Amino acid sequence: MRRGRVEIVAFDSDVLRGNAAGDPHQRRVPIYLPPGYDEDAQRRFPVVYVLTGFTGRGRMLLNDNPWSPSLDDRMDALIAAGSPELILVMPDCFTRFGGSQYVDSSATGRYEMHLVDELVPWVDARHRTLPAREHRGIAGKSSGGFGAMRLGMLHADVFGALACHSGDMLFEYCYQTDFPKACSVLQAAGGVARFLEAFEAKPQKGKDDFLALNILAMAACYSPEPEAELGIGLPFDLATGLPRADVWQRWLGFDPLRLLPTHAEALRSLRLLYLDCGTKDEFHLHHGSRAFTAELKRLGIRHRYEEFDDGHMNVPYRYDTSLPELAKALST
Amino acid sequence: MRRGRVEIVAFDSDVLRGNAAGDPHQRRVPIYLPPGYDEDAQRRFPVVYVLTGFTGRGRMLLNDNPWSPSLDDRMDALIAAGSPELILVMPDCFTRFGGSQYVDSSATGRYEMHLVDELVPWVDARHRTLPAREHRGIAGKSSGGFGAMRLGMLHADVFGALACHSGDMLFEYCYQTDFPKACSVLQAAGGVARFLEAFEAKPQKGKDDFLALNILAMAACYSPEPEAELGIGLPFDLATGLPRADVWQRWLGFDPLRLLPTHAEALRSLRLLYLDCGTKDEFHLHHGSRAFTAELKRLGIRHRYEEFDDGHMNVPYRYDTSLPELAKALST
Amino acid sequence: MRRGRVEIVAFDSDVLRGNAAGDPHQRRVPIYLPPGYDEDAQRRFPVVYVLTGFTGRGRMLLNDNPWSPSLDDRMDALIAAGSPELILVMPDCFTRFGGSQYVDSSATGRYEMHLVDELVPWVDARHRTLPAREHRGIAGKSSGGFGAMRLGMLHADVFGALACHSGDMLFEYCYQTDFPKACSVLQAAGGVARFLEAFEAKPQKGKDDFLALNILAMAACYSPEPEAELGIGLPFDLATGLPRADVWQRWLGFDPLRLLPTHAEALRSLRLLYLDCGTKDEFHLHHGSRAFTAELKRLGIRHRYEEFDDGHMNVPYRYDTSLPELAKALST
Amino acid sequence: MRRGRVEIVAFDSDVLRGNAAGDPHQRRVPIYLPPGYDEDAQRRFPVVYVLTGFTGRGRMLLNDNPWSPSLDDRMDALIAAGSPELILVMPDCFTRFGGSQYVDSSATGRYEMHLVDELVPWVDARHRTLPAREHRGIAGKSSGGFGAMRLGMLHADVFGALACHSGDMLFEYCYQTDFPKACSVLQAAGGVARFLEAFEAKPQKGKDDFLALNILAMAACYSPEPEAELGIGLPFDLATGLPRADVWQRWLGFDPLRLLPTHAEALRSLRLLYLDCGTKDEFHLHHGSRAFTAELKRLGIRHRYEEFDDGHMNVPYRYDTSLPELAKALST
Repeated sequence: MRRGRVEIVAFDSDVLRGNAAGDPHQRRVPIYLPPGYDEDAQRRFPVVYVLTGFTGRGRMLLNDNPWSPSLDDRMDALIAAGSPELILVMPDCFTRFGGSQYVDSSATGRYEMHLVDELVPWVDARHRTLPAREHRGIAGKSSGGFGAMRLGMLHADVFGALACHSGDMLFEYCYQTDFPKACSVLQAAGGVARFLEAFEAKPQKGKDDFLALNILAMAACYSPEPEAELGIGLPFDLATGLPRADVWQRWLGFDPLRLLPTHAEALRSLRLLYLDCGTKDEFHLHHGSRAFTAELKRLGIRHRYEEFDDGHMNVPYRYDTSLPELAKALST
Repeated sequence: MRRGRVEIVAFDSDVLRGNAAGDPHQRRVPIYLPPGYDEDAQRRFPVVYVLTGFTGRGRMLLNDNPWSPSLDDRMDALIAAGSPELILVMPDCFTRFGGSQYVDSSATGRYEMHLVDELVPWVDARHRTLPAREHRGIAGKSSGGFGAMRLGMLHADVFGALACHSGDMLFEYCYQTDFPKACSVLQAAGGVARFLEAFEAKPQKGKDDFLALNILAMAACYSPEPEAELGIGLPFDLATGLPRADVWQRWLGFDPLRLLPTHAEALRSLRLLYLDCGTKDEFHLHHGSRAFTAELKRLGIRHRYEEFDDGHMNVPYRYDTSLPELAKALST
Repeated sequence: MRRGRVEIVAFDSDVLRGNAAGDPHQRRVPIYLPPGYDEDAQRRFPVVYVLTGFTGRGRMLLNDNPWSPSLDDRMDALIAAGSPELILVMPDCFTRFGGSQYVDSSATGRYEMHLVDELVPWVDARHRTLPAREHRGIAGKSSGGFGAMRLGMLHADVFGALACHSGDMLFEYCYQTDFPKACSVLQAAGGVARFLEAFEAKPQKGKDDFLALNILAMAACYSPEPEAELGIGLPFDLATGLPRADVWQRWLGFDPLRLLPTHAEALRSLRLLYLDCGTKDEFHLHHGSRAFTAELKRLGIRHRYEEFDDGHMNVPYRYDTSLPELAKALST
Repeated sequence: MRRGRVEIVAFDSDVLRGNAAGDPHQRRVPIYLPPGYDEDAQRRFPVVYVLTGFTGRGRMLLNDNPWSPSLDDRMDALIAAGSPELILVMPDCFTRFGGSQYVDSSATGRYEMHLVDELVPWVDARHRTLPAREHRGIAGKSSGGFGAMRLGMLHADVFGALACHSGDMLFEYCYQTDFPKACSVLQAAGGVARFLEAFEAKPQKGKDDFLALNILAMAACYSPEPEAELGIGLPFDLATGLPRADVWQRWLGFDPLRLLPTHAEALRSLRLLYLDCGTKDEFHLHHGSRAFTAELKRLGIRHRYEEFDDGHMNVPYRYDTSLPELAKALST
């Protein structure tokens, strides 16, 4: 089998320098170059940005697992099976909260700007990409699926195709259900900062730790509040435990389901709009996916939607379906 | 040890006759008569109505468990330890949906009326109770705690003291978190009626079955909708999976936390207002209990509140705290 | 529907008086008398002794559960559906360890003798039974299934038919798998006596508590050791954690699978030998049931064996199959 | 911080060529070279072979996880904190059964020979190691801990120090407890070969799948049986479900606890013999570790043993303790 190769490049970000969460501004970004890249030194390739889910950074897509190929091995196999060749870029938008949702926030940093305005031009300058919207796609799973969908909507001038696997949407169902438990955990820890310190110090982090971290991260991304602890506006009052309706409204402003009506033209202009979701998604994202695609249908926006019989975790095999589709859409 | 005794009386209810859910109008109601009842044929006793939680009916309070006394054995022991004597009535307000929340509903039946207007006078007529508000209390756990709290608020002329253990309140946290899963289960079953038939036919009912049944029952109680399947207005649209805000508003009308402001005087008039909740309540009811008691404090309403280090299930030992308090409050 | 009735009789046991575990020698034994018992004051009935599983005592078979009839209601329904009438006796052989396995042990008491030599004659004297082996059966589930099988083997002169639901056998699979965890729990508690005291004091007992209690109880029943703590010879050394082969050999002496070869004639003489087990039994008892019935087949011993698609817990509905068979076998 | 680097070398194994399980004979072996390796082109370094646990291969030790450094990052940090420098070799002894236990078996391949006789000399030839027993160590976790302990015992001429984290021992407790469930799973699958094919075809493998695979792999390693399906002698009879005592005896021949008495001199000769285990190990390995170290003590064999408050999974942070100790022991 012809093999591509991975370069892991250290990227020095101006945008992330001095970010609020104190995360590094230098990031290691893996870039997969397909077999043809070295075979023909003149040839240019379409490129797809692949966004990891919560608690991930790009390098994780290369992790070894004997029964689930790393993204580079997976792409090699897809190309061997007939897929057009693609460059894959695996950004690192991780924060100490577990992720950035690929949005700009005063509590984390400007990850949307980093990705769109900084990383994309840099990749185009450094590698033989086809440097045009028609040949540039974005994909991801879970929080990465959310990122792909939202950035695809908001930056239709940059991305010409997108794939959203089990992406966060219909926030009532995927986030709100965890509020009471997250509130209990944060209260027990003695607040946001103490929770985070204890979390980082624990050699073994538990299920509830991650549940609380997830809600904390979403708050850091969707409802930063400069005067609050660590600059994060929680969707509940830590003292009383009660929900905060105003914060919740800010969250909803990020829900792809709510963004859809005002971004229909962007979606309509895509060469490929791919979504899928497992029917047993533990975050209930199948409800969101169905509502989203129902709305796409209503608006007559062309898309491809698949449901599969599985849950939310460990489904990288879904890229076997989306990547060749993206490759085709971006190659012509 | 002096022993009381239990009579299990078959009660023929006019109010429940022909109820919508097709549940029996004849109910077996256990009545605990304390040791002194037979020792002194003239003496009258205060009475407490003890309401079971979801999936229960009064007789369940008598179930045998080698490490957790049945309610009659428990009361015997409390009296032996110095508690004033009490008559305990264990109503059966069960429905095929798993419960009635002790409210009137066109989808289930008039269980509030049955309890307040029918059962109370019948008990007073049949047994040597002290037939006055000052000597009549109501208590319960979980859905029974909800029932005790709500009926205590709405029928302050009937009940003079109440104890609410881990009672349903702050509905966003105790119910809404289960909507997406309940919706998935009902969709998979092919609708409300089919779900219920399959549920009843299954020899072994699973965790998700009960989760869905619980939400279905709450909908039957809080948002009956005559034109809907089985007359039940679900809090989500079964076709699209999306939340229904109008139905949700109807639910909130039953939330004790929302009833409190308009029923402060009723609560203020109680001889005892007792609440408790476990700090690890799996339905997150500690958040509701805290919000409720914070509001009581703000309004200057006398009450007793305890938190204990446990979850929601298997906590009948909490009656060891509330029953003697009720007995004292209702005896003077 | 014709209804039988239950008498709960206080039985004063000479055999259990002063038992080693300090459990009461007075026991409350429910006896179900079928509808015909009161209709015809001369008529005599076959009788079946129904043995509860671990952590149970006879009264538990009467517990109320809205979706699973108590044993008396179940028998009423079976009789209404055509089953011959039966008297059902529900012995209480509970100990502070959670059970007695219906065997004689110096660490618990002589429960086998209590049941066979004391309770049976007393029931025959007090009630209109058909007081002969041909009309007397024994049945049970789990530890009760073990009890029914073993007592049926050892006292073929007393019992003429037996039903064993998910009964303990092939001890390697149903017990040995829990030894390392039980050992850890008992070590952490600081020994057998301390574990037991802490267990009894806990308002909420956990999964591991019951796992350890189960192994402790089996040790109390199968390998009493007068010089050991509480007189119980554990199947592992509490100090080193290592398995004790000699104790294990004593346990195997109680395994129905090992008793079978020497008790084939007793089993052959039964009017009904019924076994069943769930194919997903969490204690792996389906392996034992299969091995046992394979041996029955090899020996040409008539029996009836069923497997059902369920686990170990909450399967009282299996009595719907066994009780009418027992009734038929014992009625002719 | 000074950084080492990782070379991932493709190793072509003569020993593994044509292995029975059909696994590749070419393996990718990561080798970590410490910062000093490139700073001083003459300097030689001690080397430690780090063995992954079941389902792993060497590359997995490099997997990215934002809260748990990969082995190379971990070693960099330890060196920065004062540890002597080490070369780390991460062998790939994976098989389609999930692992090889680093033993020779006719059902898998000669992994012990591959590691000891082929990989060690090759590393010494290719890299600037200190090519002597005194400077060569072996370490691992779980199945890798077993491998380190066993190879250290059997090849004391090759390895001069070892660290065993949560290593398989006291086989009754870590394996036998899973036999009944593994048997059920393999029976349900229709045998060994069918199970394995179905396992490999499943995109999502479940908990029971891995439990069965684990027992299957151990059988492939400890009790190969040329005439059996896939050449694997199972420790139970798939037809009857009953345990096979003869197979079990073969397994015990691999138990480090049983190997100890005959390999005391090898252990005594080590520069470092390090063991640790979590007190909540889900495979109950703390019992084995305690028994093993008790025996070491009895024999007067110097060692270091630690227990930590954690379970079996996700404990690579334990290398922070063992690697500097190994580095020190192998550096002088």
